[in-house]
Amino acid sequence: MADINSPVEIGVTTGPIRGSRKVYVGARTGSGVRVAMREIDLEGGEPSVRVYDTSGPYTDPDARIDINAGLPGLRSDWIRSRGDVEEYDAREVKPEDNGQLGPDRSGGVPQFPNTVKRPLRAKAGHNVTQIHYARKGIITPEMEYVAERENLGREIAADHVRDGESWGAEIPDVITPELVRSEVARGRAIIPNNINHPESEPMAIGRNFLVKINANIGNSAVASDVAQEVDKMVWATRWGADTIMDLSTGRNIHDTREWIIRNSAVPVGTVPIYQALEKVGGVAEDLTWEIFRDTLIEQAEQGVDYFTIHAGVRLPFVPMAAKRVTGIVSRGGSIMAKWCLAHHKESFLYEHFNEISEICAAYDIAYSLGDGLRPGSIADANDEAQFAELYTLGELTKRAWAQDVQVMIEGPGHVPMHKIKENMEKQLEACGEAPFYTLGPLVTDIAPGYDHITSGIGAAQIGWYGTAMLCYVTPKEHLGLPDRDDVKVGVVTYKLAAHAADLAKGHPAAKVRDDALSKARFEFRWRDQFNLSLDPDTAEQYHDQTLPAEGAKTAHFCSMCGPKFCSMKISQEVREFAAKQNSDSYLATEDLKGENTPQERAENEAGMEEMSRVYKAKGEKLYLPEDEAQ
Amino acid sequence: MADINSPVEIGVTTGPIRGSRKVYVGARTGSGVRVAMREIDLEGGEPSVRVYDTSGPYTDPDARIDINAGLPGLRSDWIRSRGDVEEYDAREVKPEDNGQLGPDRSGGVPQFPNTVKRPLRAKAGHNVTQIHYARKGIITPEMEYVAERENLGREIAADHVRDGESWGAEIPDVITPELVRSEVARGRAIIPNNINHPESEPMAIGRNFLVKINANIGNSAVASDVAQEVDKMVWATRWGADTIMDLSTGRNIHDTREWIIRNSAVPVGTVPIYQALEKVGGVAEDLTWEIFRDTLIEQAEQGVDYFTIHAGVRLPFVPMAAKRVTGIVSRGGSIMAKWCLAHHKESFLYEHFNEISEICAAYDIAYSLGDGLRPGSIADANDEAQFAELYTLGELTKRAWAQDVQVMIEGPGHVPMHKIKENMEKQLEACGEAPFYTLGPLVTDIAPGYDHITSGIGAAQIGWYGTAMLCYVTPKEHLGLPDRDDVKVGVVTYKLAAHAADLAKGHPAAKVRDDALSKARFEFRWRDQFNLSLDPDTAEQYHDQTLPAEGAKTAHFCSMCGPKFCSMKISQEVREFAAKQNSDSYLATEDLKGENTPQERAENEAGMEEMSRVYKAKGEKLYLPEDEAQ
Repeated sequence: MADINSPVEIGVTTGPIRGSRKVYVGARTGSGVRVAMREIDLEGGEPSVRVYDTSGPYTDPDARIDINAGLPGLRSDWIRSRGDVEEYDAREVKPEDNGQLGPDRSGGVPQFPNTVKRPLRAKAGHNVTQIHYARKGIITPEMEYVAERENLGREIAADHVRDGESWGAEIPDVITPELVRSEVARGRAIIPNNINHPESEPMAIGRNFLVKINANIGNSAVASDVAQEVDKMVWATRWGADTIMDLSTGRNIHDTREWIIRNSAVPVGTVPIYQALEKVGGVAEDLTWEIFRDTLIEQAEQGVDYFTIHAGVRLPFVPMAAKRVTGIVSRGGSIMAKWCLAHHKESFLYEHFNEISEICAAYDIAYSLGDGLRPGSIADANDEAQFAELYTLGELTKRAWAQDVQVMIEGPGHVPMHKIKENMEKQLEACGEAPFYTLGPLVTDIAPGYDHITSGIGAAQIGWYGTAMLCYVTPKEHLGLPDRDDVKVGVVTYKLAAHAADLAKGHPAAKVRDDALSKARFEFRWRDQFNLSLDPDTAEQYHDQTLPAEGAKTAHFCSMCGPKFCSMKISQEVREFAAKQNSDSYLATEDLKGENTPQERAENEAGMEEMSRVYKAKGEKLYLPEDEAQ
Repeated sequence: MADINSPVEIGVTTGPIRGSRKVYVGARTGSGVRVAMREIDLEGGEPSVRVYDTSGPYTDPDARIDINAGLPGLRSDWIRSRGDVEEYDAREVKPEDNGQLGPDRSGGVPQFPNTVKRPLRAKAGHNVTQIHYARKGIITPEMEYVAERENLGREIAADHVRDGESWGAEIPDVITPELVRSEVARGRAIIPNNINHPESEPMAIGRNFLVKINANIGNSAVASDVAQEVDKMVWATRWGADTIMDLSTGRNIHDTREWIIRNSAVPVGTVPIYQALEKVGGVAEDLTWEIFRDTLIEQAEQGVDYFTIHAGVRLPFVPMAAKRVTGIVSRGGSIMAKWCLAHHKESFLYEHFNEISEICAAYDIAYSLGDGLRPGSIADANDEAQFAELYTLGELTKRAWAQDVQVMIEGPGHVPMHKIKENMEKQLEACGEAPFYTLGPLVTDIAPGYDHITSGIGAAQIGWYGTAMLCYVTPKEHLGLPDRDDVKVGVVTYKLAAHAADLAKGHPAAKVRDDALSKARFEFRWRDQFNLSLDPDTAEQYHDQTLPAEGAKTAHFCSMCGPKFCSMKISQEVREFAAKQNSDSYLATEDLKGENTPQERAENEAGMEEMSRVYKAKGEKLYLPEDEAQ
């Protein structure tokens, strides 16, 4: 039995990501808001590159990290200064909150030493959501933070040329706080940040912002403990997770969540029905609105930033799913389907939706309306059950908006490529452009062990079409619980998919990093190439497996081909030579299709021979000193 | 120094792929052609599933494997019985063929003990290409083999419903030998099989057939030896490589290739300019048509099935590439660009193209017209240089077709998602639907170490749009030489991308495997799930990391959630219950959008309460014995 009063040893990864340093960029509004970013300095006088940073204080060498104390409350003053919140005595933690274990907290999860005893909620008659402020025309510090963060602290170059197909998204050249406000006001973007999670750094999810990714962690009935999960959370955000979801089941759910939230610099989402089910011993039929509501309050006070609520799984839809190859693959969805069938009543989530919205409004918790009927196989994609639920989620979106509550919509799942676009189009139409948040989708079912890739393919595409956040999938999907390495592979895979989507949408901030890395590659600045990549450690490690020598890091050839065969090297020589001889002037490109007159050809050929003579006369050197080059 | 007369110990992986057995399916024409396939037997009375098999005799327990002897000549009789070929004395192997090493063959590459001393070529005045036969209306055994192979030995179910977006491809329900002939005749598909590589199993590359993948192997100046490369070839084809390319550079190119071809059951491609460059000591300017031509004959006699020829890199295009961020990233392209600039002459490949075609016609070697000017970065995608070359490749395609030579076209490279479709459309238009063979494309530059994924995303999309073969990329791309594990990851990644493309195109044979695996997943037939996957070993290994126990392989819950939270388990209960109560009858789906009349609603609710009473009366059991269920 762990002593709940002594500090716990939880090891997490700290320190800068290789080749970069933490910077804090002041909002150009001069309001004093400082936005954390990562800056990558380059060699050869190249301008440094700023990249979006989700890693929180853990990558700041100057930050003091104490897992037992939690992170500082970045947003505390912003929240209190609005004068619309009040402290109150927190709900008493009950034994069943941790899985009916009673006071003896076995299972390796001690209570967090620094729990919030006096949480905040909206004063009676007030609404503390960002959408509520936005609709009143108020630009909050959270919105300022988001604007600067989305701009990556850069000014767009005057000569910047937009290039992309945005499928109707309206991404401006520069994100202003006012734009953030208007996007949040019309429900096209959300800023998930519970007033009881002041440790979180504001971020936005919406189709006119950078595409975000979520990483799932959490205890399961089968394995894992709290130290492991806190470490996974820090590890996932280090590599780029924009939000994390705590999907703990089994025992110690309450305490595990407290450890995670107090130490998380990114928004934390949950699926409250999981904990509610534990409270009734896993018997879906025994779930009641009262138990569920109490669970929402419990989690709201801890600071959960968004709730997955499967209110779209309505009784009439259940038989549609019964016809499927893989039935209902959403845990929350199957739990509610069972409840509905057992009682032959409409879902209590659907019936009590407005009361749930009231809770969300009092803490600023965003909805993530769950797709309990998402397809679990290629065969079930885009079927009646899936779309029946989607249109119900659209109806619920409008009800939530009517109460000034932020909403995003969860999506599939397993979908072949030719059916992905229809998912995006129907979601935009049914849900009034509320942010779409999809799991993959996986574009084939036949590659268990590689489903981070089958889903990354679908994620990149649906992200391009307009999905605002992509829920990662790890190599262990369908097979087992992800370990630390799986979490990293899943996060990096989804970062590259999200970035590919930003590029294709034509996001003005996206291409900078690709161009910087490619230029470094062409100029054999190996270290810059490593440092600009999503995973510098792996990039350098792979390189060193072939050419370990330090010298190789400055070698002017690729480790694949060796010096003689390096196309980049030859290509540089070609470029130099072509430039020196101003080749363009006489290499008549009009001749491409052989349209020149005989005389033009003759002139060209004469020019060729002359140049060949000059080249030989100058010793057949490709690199000529300036003076000889004329 | 290795003794060239004693057998060499080369270890390769043999034996069936887990959970499957080799079967030989006779062509339904009754011609006696037997096609190798892999059959996966399932539990619970499920029908077995036949899958495409590239692994050759190595996975046949009855086959005798002797690397020093090479594989049997499956096609020898077919080739000779046509009466249009003649044996002749092979070209003398010269020291420079192996990198000017002289008779002392150091470098770990002994001569293959069983080299062909009397190769075949077309008799004077004859053409032995499949396109030549096809245009004469002849259906060859190779075409029969391909037809049966593409059908996966199955008959299409009468109730089969087509589902997909083929972007203009015309995939029939069943592939007939006549269809293969007509596709080859019009140049829309190729069957690469040099008459001196009778060991190869016929396969087709074309947009109306299953999407294929290629794996690159080969020595490099920096590392690796022949045993390693032969093993990689066997390993790559075991996991699904439809063709392999030997991209050896440095020393021992000739001998390495002989070992690979004699033991390869799939077509082998090369880039002859690599070896030619070695013959002139790596000095591009010193390359001559004579040396190149001699190299083509050398490789033709060994049995190379397709040549990458960079004849589209014309002198006038070179300056266009000089303006790029990453210049010319194709090795062959940069070599030819350097030659062109140095001599200020048109490429000798372009000038002598018809003579190259004559060689191809005499051995049935297919062109893989190289994209020497493919973009090497997002910044260079779809630029002037790339498309100028593409239209030249279109011109060369028609010239090759005029000589009855098979042709495919190589494509990019690095391309953001929104520019991928244009590549496919321009290629179809410029090259008259000759098969497109692309490398990726990579959809972002910022993920070195994960470029099998960045490129797999692009490959799946361009495969969907109509690309016939996808050249794999391993995790080591841009960083180092792939090892055995990298080769497998690259192959499996590309198999899943190609399969995702087949699904999206609506190929009638594709979805069978997805449905079988998903059904197995839903029914907790774990072993079937493993065996139906592209990589059964990894799937089972991942599963066992969480639930090692043998019992878990038949457990009725997923290893992620544990019994209580398994959505599939709950979902099965829901299905059973819904079925038993014929729920559909009274769960009025018209009520979805709440359009029922008050009376209809009242009736529905009455029905609900009745069903709830029945459910409770029967002991709230979800599983009811048949007799109680009425």
